[in-house]
Amino acid sequence: MNALIIYTHPNHKSLNYAMYQAAYNTAKTNPNITDIRTIDLYQEDFDPRLVFNETKRRRDMHTDAEMAPYREAITWADHITFVYPIWWGRPPAMLLGFIDKLFATNFAYKYTGKLMPEGLLKGKTVVCISTMKGPTGYPKFFLNNAHKALMKKALFSFVGIKKVKFFEFGSSEKKEGPNAKNITKIKRHYSAL
Amino acid sequence: MNALIIYTHPNHKSLNYAMYQAAYNTAKTNPNITDIRTIDLYQEDFDPRLVFNETKRRRDMHTDAEMAPYREAITWADHITFVYPIWWGRPPAMLLGFIDKLFATNFAYKYTGKLMPEGLLKGKTVVCISTMKGPTGYPKFFLNNAHKALMKKALFSFVGIKKVKFFEFGSSEKKEGPNAKNITKIKRHYSAL
Repeated sequence: MNALIIYTHPNHKSLNYAMYQAAYNTAKTNPNITDIRTIDLYQEDFDPRLVFNETKRRRDMHTDAEMAPYREAITWADHITFVYPIWWGRPPAMLLGFIDKLFATNFAYKYTGKLMPEGLLKGKTVVCISTMKGPTGYPKFFLNNAHKALMKKALFSFVGIKKVKFFEFGSSEKKEGPNAKNITKIKRHYSAL
Repeated sequence: MNALIIYTHPNHKSLNYAMYQAAYNTAKTNPNITDIRTIDLYQEDFDPRLVFNETKRRRDMHTDAEMAPYREAITWADHITFVYPIWWGRPPAMLLGFIDKLFATNFAYKYTGKLMPEGLLKGKTVVCISTMKGPTGYPKFFLNNAHKALMKKALFSFVGIKKVKFFEFGSSEKKEGPNAKNITKIKRHYSAL
């Protein structure tokens, strides 16, 4: 199995980075995982602004040269992990812009004349590891699970990815909080793949 | 009343721009509106990447010099309009990054020792005008109204803005679709303010 980790946090001295490391280092020791690659969007200085107009057509997005290495990595991967903080109830703009530019028609999905387009990334598995300052129940009880609806239904299901697991960790800025226990949960996932 | 319009679409030859123009031009003729300003994020080449680390502290975000003109515009405005397309169930990364960088602690809200922080942008009114390719009912029936939950509850309510109106326009790429009627709805709103 090929594992790809997409990391989106501006600071490596962060809980998010510790979670990334827990996933990466555990996956490294798992004999079921052939190879692991990382995309670190802040480190790569990724530009999250999707531009299209008369000369740069939206319909050509799936052949955009800047995004070619990222399309190749997604195609290569069987298991894709996203690590990010929750800001304002959803992932940072940096990650959402990566999504805006990457998941193009005729790469991630295509129109076939039916009511819904056909997802082209079938068979892959996704894990979303996110941290937030507020309590773990906040997205569920106050935001109708907006974060999960966006990632699972609006995005991954649309491109054909049905297996999506969430680690949605709250109270992440509390010193006496659940962070150590949460890192153990991540390690357990990546050793059992 | 001071009216601010924040426009986020990469192309001026778009339905979004026609909706922006309908709002702007109608507001211009409304005697209750003293002045109107526009922020065109793509035109201004805004950088939506929020960066913080050991040298650029998150706690100093509310004094960040790059964002000072935008803070001033938000403070100035009584009525704030956002015009944007819906991509993957939510606004483009460009607008969400503007939000990541603008709505800082001690500008948009502050901690007072209570369970929830206090919103600092009280008394303002927000209108969100958005277009999407899919049918108007899609966000409600398939995404638990994730877009509205994110904008109204996770963001505006948190910073003290209680009056939020949505124009969520579906089927916007249909030639025989509801676009002309939708533009009339926008004009009606901005003439009645």
